[in-house]
Amino acid sequence: MGGAAITAALEDAGIAPDVPTAVYVGNMMSGILSDQQHLGPLLAYAAGMTNVDAVTAEACCGAGGAAFRWGCMAVASGWHETVVVAGVEAMTHTSPDKTTKALATASHWETEGAHGATFVSLNGGLMEQYMEKYAVPHSAFAPFALTAHDNAANSPEAVFHKKALTEEQFEASITITPPVQLMDACPTCDGAAAVVLTSNKDIARQADGGFVEVNGSGSACDILPVAERPEPLHLKAVESSARQALAQAGLGHQDMDMFELHDAYTIMACLSLESAGFVEPGQGLQFAADGDIALNGKLPIATFGGLKARGHPVGATGVYQAAEVFLQLAHRAGANQVAGVQTAMMQNIGGAGSSVFTHVLTRG
Amino acid sequence: MGGAAITAALEDAGIAPDVPTAVYVGNMMSGILSDQQHLGPLLAYAAGMTNVDAVTAEACCGAGGAAFRWGCMAVASGWHETVVVAGVEAMTHTSPDKTTKALATASHWETEGAHGATFVSLNGGLMEQYMEKYAVPHSAFAPFALTAHDNAANSPEAVFHKKALTEEQFEASITITPPVQLMDACPTCDGAAAVVLTSNKDIARQADGGFVEVNGSGSACDILPVAERPEPLHLKAVESSARQALAQAGLGHQDMDMFELHDAYTIMACLSLESAGFVEPGQGLQFAADGDIALNGKLPIATFGGLKARGHPVGATGVYQAAEVFLQLAHRAGANQVAGVQTAMMQNIGGAGSSVFTHVLTRG
Repeated sequence: MGGAAITAALEDAGIAPDVPTAVYVGNMMSGILSDQQHLGPLLAYAAGMTNVDAVTAEACCGAGGAAFRWGCMAVASGWHETVVVAGVEAMTHTSPDKTTKALATASHWETEGAHGATFVSLNGGLMEQYMEKYAVPHSAFAPFALTAHDNAANSPEAVFHKKALTEEQFEASITITPPVQLMDACPTCDGAAAVVLTSNKDIARQADGGFVEVNGSGSACDILPVAERPEPLHLKAVESSARQALAQAGLGHQDMDMFELHDAYTIMACLSLESAGFVEPGQGLQFAADGDIALNGKLPIATFGGLKARGHPVGATGVYQAAEVFLQLAHRAGANQVAGVQTAMMQNIGGAGSSVFTHVLTRG
Repeated sequence: MGGAAITAALEDAGIAPDVPTAVYVGNMMSGILSDQQHLGPLLAYAAGMTNVDAVTAEACCGAGGAAFRWGCMAVASGWHETVVVAGVEAMTHTSPDKTTKALATASHWETEGAHGATFVSLNGGLMEQYMEKYAVPHSAFAPFALTAHDNAANSPEAVFHKKALTEEQFEASITITPPVQLMDACPTCDGAAAVVLTSNKDIARQADGGFVEVNGSGSACDILPVAERPEPLHLKAVESSARQALAQAGLGHQDMDMFELHDAYTIMACLSLESAGFVEPGQGLQFAADGDIALNGKLPIATFGGLKARGHPVGATGVYQAAEVFLQLAHRAGANQVAGVQTAMMQNIGGAGSSVFTHVLTRG
């Protein structure tokens, strides 16, 4: 699956497998769920790349974003000219219990996972606090899920392709851990994605499919145990990494035409909008209700369905975001095209805001 | 353990925990054996580093070297000025069977690990081929193990501190997988190590303990399934990564005063010397027998005991090598000091030569 994604990316870029000199892989759970670590050489081998720098970045659900950033640094350092960034995760071949436990290794195991905390319950805690603080009902989170399903309608790669969601269905979905209901949460799935990064302008320009520029990158971590954070509803690493990426790009929030955010849960989408600085604290739900997150809104999110409806193949998600932002900025997004998009922010989160990777990209 | 290593490194460098802006962690098995992934934010939290770029590099036994290289790229790219590289692995709190299986996830699981191959058997295959090709007995590998134990005698951090080994004991040790005997193999152990990397010369110069320069870095992978390699006894990624590192440093083999190599097995030490280009194919055993690998030899290896006698805490090993090479080049190696050492190569291997990270360093 990872090798196929790399091959597809190389073909789209119009370069042979022997051009890139490195492959950076985003993955979280292949060791736990598939008895296979060492995905660097495995994917290089699968894609016909030999003798390259081949390594894995792990930052849980943020692994893809971490791998993308590693690839950017590799090129920025001048140590590589052209590299591949690939993300891959297989989660559906094993029991749901095993997958849920494996996902919980992203938490502070000693104080969270070992005591039964899962990412549903950790997000549930944040959602409960948010609903109490701002006195909002569960149904107010519906627009995040509905928008994601709307955008997945035209995306054949999406898990929930053509599975529209109504507000009634959202509210009627079963409760997993209160107040989180099934339709607040992203689906477990398998997936792989890959992109090519290069500092060689000739390689970029000869690509029939167009190219985009990576202008800014940011990465930050937060206190791992959520309960020890002074303000859990402020995702500090979301804020910090977004600030870093914008500063490096020399751009501001107002310059962003879209925001591929990490909507693993509706609460995470809401907090990401707020903590990244696009809306004031407490305004995320209203922003969504106003349609500002839709494809034709002020700041489209989840443009191919996001984690909620495209799916969240954990370590691959950050690279899916990169591929999707590329398609948007290259104006190849078809029915999902954000009209006239020139700049985009993408943000991939590991854990409940524990490690965050933000990038700013512009149309080439 | 990882936090303590970072704290010790920061203290030795004379800088506060808020100076580094990133921590790159080398680890292989924390998810499988300790239910804890996401070591970036975990170690940052443990070491009192907040809001930093905190991520894990995974390349199996080469994870520490991969993290070190990531740290170098982060500084070389200008995206960070000062970073911490830490390696950590806990392997002794679980059953040996579980650890052995976890280690085998570094192999090509589908064709190797799933069929019962372990790293003992994979190295055994290479050792058997070597013994047949060059018509040498098992006892000819003894100097690698004896030298490692000799060097561990004065190293309090070593697993086999003051546990001298004689040639008789080497030959009398039990056979694990023929022809590999117990004293060919590195011990399973827990461990953590950390180093500080900076592009700020003032920070480097004010360190009471001295500083060293990283002059060259190389990384390469080989075909993951060992049986598919055309010449299994030539570790292609060892050769390629060593060549890259020397080229970047503008130095040659003759300039290297020591070589911290990856002696997980005596055969791996021998093949590393040969494939890295320090001796001709088939000459590694003679080089060792001549005493050329001893502390006062032509090319000292395993100067604090190496993987064989210091121990091999998998994802931490590459960072142990960096810390030990630092102590050597800073002339702080005490009884293990390689006299007058000015330059060193260190090399960390993931799997049976599947991914290899080589660095060249010089005295500051």
